[in-house]
Amino acid sequence: MCIRDSLSTLKLSEKSFLSSLGELKENSKLILCRITDDHAIQGVEEAYLKLHLLSYKFFQPNTLNLENMFNILPNVAWTNKGPIDLNEIDQKILESKAQNLSLEIKSIDKFPRLVDYIVPSGVRIADTSRVRLGAYLSEGTTVMHEGFVNFNAGTLGAAMIEGRISAGVVIGKNSDLGGGASTMGTLSGGNSTVISVGDECLIGANAGIGLPLGDRCTVEAGLYITAGTKVNMVGENGEIAGQAKARDLAGQSDLLFRRNSLSGAIECLTNKSVIELNESLHAHN
Amino acid sequence: MCIRDSLSTLKLSEKSFLSSLGELKENSKLILCRITDDHAIQGVEEAYLKLHLLSYKFFQPNTLNLENMFNILPNVAWTNKGPIDLNEIDQKILESKAQNLSLEIKSIDKFPRLVDYIVPSGVRIADTSRVRLGAYLSEGTTVMHEGFVNFNAGTLGAAMIEGRISAGVVIGKNSDLGGGASTMGTLSGGNSTVISVGDECLIGANAGIGLPLGDRCTVEAGLYITAGTKVNMVGENGEIAGQAKARDLAGQSDLLFRRNSLSGAIECLTNKSVIELNESLHAHN
Amino acid sequence: MCIRDSLSTLKLSEKSFLSSLGELKENSKLILCRITDDHAIQGVEEAYLKLHLLSYKFFQPNTLNLENMFNILPNVAWTNKGPIDLNEIDQKILESKAQNLSLEIKSIDKFPRLVDYIVPSGVRIADTSRVRLGAYLSEGTTVMHEGFVNFNAGTLGAAMIEGRISAGVVIGKNSDLGGGASTMGTLSGGNSTVISVGDECLIGANAGIGLPLGDRCTVEAGLYITAGTKVNMVGENGEIAGQAKARDLAGQSDLLFRRNSLSGAIECLTNKSVIELNESLHAHN
Repeated sequence: MCIRDSLSTLKLSEKSFLSSLGELKENSKLILCRITDDHAIQGVEEAYLKLHLLSYKFFQPNTLNLENMFNILPNVAWTNKGPIDLNEIDQKILESKAQNLSLEIKSIDKFPRLVDYIVPSGVRIADTSRVRLGAYLSEGTTVMHEGFVNFNAGTLGAAMIEGRISAGVVIGKNSDLGGGASTMGTLSGGNSTVISVGDECLIGANAGIGLPLGDRCTVEAGLYITAGTKVNMVGENGEIAGQAKARDLAGQSDLLFRRNSLSGAIECLTNKSVIELNESLHAHN
Repeated sequence: MCIRDSLSTLKLSEKSFLSSLGELKENSKLILCRITDDHAIQGVEEAYLKLHLLSYKFFQPNTLNLENMFNILPNVAWTNKGPIDLNEIDQKILESKAQNLSLEIKSIDKFPRLVDYIVPSGVRIADTSRVRLGAYLSEGTTVMHEGFVNFNAGTLGAAMIEGRISAGVVIGKNSDLGGGASTMGTLSGGNSTVISVGDECLIGANAGIGLPLGDRCTVEAGLYITAGTKVNMVGENGEIAGQAKARDLAGQSDLLFRRNSLSGAIECLTNKSVIELNESLHAHN
Repeated sequence: MCIRDSLSTLKLSEKSFLSSLGELKENSKLILCRITDDHAIQGVEEAYLKLHLLSYKFFQPNTLNLENMFNILPNVAWTNKGPIDLNEIDQKILESKAQNLSLEIKSIDKFPRLVDYIVPSGVRIADTSRVRLGAYLSEGTTVMHEGFVNFNAGTLGAAMIEGRISAGVVIGKNSDLGGGASTMGTLSGGNSTVISVGDECLIGANAGIGLPLGDRCTVEAGLYITAGTKVNMVGENGEIAGQAKARDLAGQSDLLFRRNSLSGAIECLTNKSVIELNESLHAHN
């Protein structure tokens, strides 16, 4: 439930926070929202608050009830003049052209960009248009230009993100999601299993995963493993020891997935060469 | 032919439109362009007008003569101070640095961004730098951060666009172009067949197509089908019923393309599980 | 070594350059940096200067000593109000919200965007957020929306870049790096061989390379070739003439890589149909 408090009910710390902002503009309106029960989202304030709580890392992805998010959030033009109601946008564009003033619409979306509200400490985001409010980015994370982080998704430790983290997906520490790599989401065209990647994993460039991975797993560049993919299990001596569906390997550690370039078969081996993230590349100071 | 009308020949509705803009800046010049014959583009005004006509959805992609577009359009620096001639840009950058003023060049291109001129109604565009003027976006379309829409290309109904729509390509209603998916264009390295995607299709993440698809087709995540690809036609009972070149399947409906993960062969089956776009995800209000 | 010269030691041409900027803002500080030995980077000025030298094309990629770059460069918020120290960014965001002023953080990164400092002539960059300072872009190059160019990387002639050029990678003239194509870097998860692409090559959309290519090579759309990939060498009459590791083909010209869509095997043939870049598409005037 979202309470629209009056200023008189504010706690001292809240008043002190407000005065730290300096004088508010004459016509600003302040809405205070307290969530006491974690039920499905009932109002815009609750939606925005929950997105903030995720990005401030008070709650990990998939621990808050985000039901109704898409229904509740309005589509908004996020501009260099702040958010603008889409009913007013045409007039604003004409005015800006006539006056030769700049109106830059960065995004027309239900979600603002993360850094318009929160800058997580110890994080690099090479192109801020690629991370939505609601992203959970742990210290030491780098999101490169081709990286993307949806709301209710992110990294649980230092990680190199050059691919796309879909809603609901988390990536463990010291893992590398390669350039253009895809993590299958549950929202659109995917299945109902929430994908995750453990620690010290390497998902190669242009690869993709439709199953959760444990720790120290590697997926070869360019290989897409969906939950339904049948794979040859390859033993110590290179022999085919059996077959498995990828979904039955969900969450297991120390796996290496690759496509045999001569037989065309997808193979799963024990992963022996674990990625080491380049230390100087990941230095953030 | 583009007529540079004087203000005195304007129709009443045009005059009324102009006055609705408020007072024009002192030094603005107004150019009125009427196209009476759809011939190859002969001037910059015609080029921009045709791009507007596409994005206002007066004409569908591939129905206007866009010949000469690339030769006619100048390369322009599109900035937060409006378009700037490239001959002047170096001096402008130095000035802005010296004065500590912000000059932001968003794009150096022949085409501006769509939303700097037109905001189509009922559309979400998560990163507006990814859609060029000349894009044709139907109500209910979402272009996600990884989506891209070129000029003379777009969607014919509500669609989820997380991949790249090349020039000349159209996507049907209730279709999903997955994250990073590629549609082969005719401009560069592609062939001369114009690609299209019918209704209720799903092109998986990191997949790609080099042939037009009918309705209710699915291409597995990570699979690139070019026109020349040979595929095994698989029957009801899983038997290989024959072989075909992908280009001979162009425009057919109810096809499922996948790569057999054990044999490595690309297979074409009858598609039985049709995608259903997530309704709440696609709510735009 | 970086010398912080006083204004009195400036050469006449340098003084003349400065006065061409007009009056500098009261509180600006000028730092003059001269590099006399090309040793590992020792200070921020040297790092920025070397990035400029690359982007001004005084030095080709991989010809300057860039050691220590990541350790030396601070992480900075690149905003519409100029670069901001990350220690001050939270307060600045709060202030801008309270005042309803726009503070746009474009990037939180060690590297600024190229065009905030340098606009290379005869180049199109459809989305300027995708090219870092330190990129080396030759006249006639187009970097499309999905293209990306890292520092110490670029093009040695007119080229169409719709994929990602990793640090250290160079692309030859009249080559086409397709949409979403990946070039394996040496910084993260890659190997130690520096990748390059010769002249008149076509790397298909969503393809990738982990080996250097000579001239007139083609990699089929969607195919990722790593250095360790075993390939069938296919002869004039379609017969398999032998096998090779991709790394042993490094730098060779006139090769065509594809995956046999029926056998699943990766094949290497002599390339007979060389790409011709679309001339009007590449017109820059």
